[in-house]
Amino acid sequence: MHNHDLEEGTALAPTFDANGLITTVVTDAASGDVLMLAHMNAEALERTVESGEAWYFSRSRQKLWKKGEQSGHVQRVVELRIDCDQDAVWLKVEQHGAGACHTGRRSCFYRRVPLGRSGANLEFVEDKSFDPTSVYKK
Amino acid sequence: MHNHDLEEGTALAPTFDANGLITTVVTDAASGDVLMLAHMNAEALERTVESGEAWYFSRSRQKLWKKGEQSGHVQRVVELRIDCDQDAVWLKVEQHGAGACHTGRRSCFYRRVPLGRSGANLEFVEDKSFDPTSVYKK
Repeated sequence: MHNHDLEEGTALAPTFDANGLITTVVTDAASGDVLMLAHMNAEALERTVESGEAWYFSRSRQKLWKKGEQSGHVQRVVELRIDCDQDAVWLKVEQHGAGACHTGRRSCFYRRVPLGRSGANLEFVEDKSFDPTSVYKK
Repeated sequence: MHNHDLEEGTALAPTFDANGLITTVVTDAASGDVLMLAHMNAEALERTVESGEAWYFSRSRQKLWKKGEQSGHVQRVVELRIDCDQDAVWLKVEQHGAGACHTGRRSCFYRRVPLGRSGANLEFVEDKSFDPTSVYKK
């Protein structure tokens, strides 16, 4: 597809990378906070569009997974957008349950990097909201 | 670095991919909207932390670039966060100028994918806010 059609057209034509994946940004529809970054393959994207619930592809486990299938922390998709060159997806979700992060926090982005100097310690900006050992089977 | 230290520690230890890059989500500090997705190499991350302005690494041009160096649409970083396994960065920025997207829009995510059915047309949710041909030299 030509650049102009990709950017200005109305056809969904996602550009998957060499591993067949597209990067997905997930934000909380209420707060606007970034909850997590994940990847989708074509099937995960199709299931997400059709069901309105978030499906991803796990690179470490090399398998399709539905967010919340173990933890119950499913994500209902409020809006799904694709970017200019169609190689990134943005999901606005309602995060069910206590959080999106496997460490037990609402967001995976729970540490701040102080600006203005290099080598500074990370600052925690969020506490754990659930006990991951009680939610995720090992 | 062990998983526990990576996730629960205060040392910045970004995990760059095979190409030396880390994925970066950029949101508008005021609206919470995702403006763009980009990549940083180690030098771009260091310059961003030290200067408080966003630097990236262009995969297509294979070079370090400061956002706004051509367009004047610089991004002042309000907050920089890193995720649990330190392979993704979130920048909350003040977007100067008319927008972040090279197509002339405020956000790169200007099209919505309708949910509930596959094969539906993309819906435009944002108009162009500037003329890219007057801002970007070819």
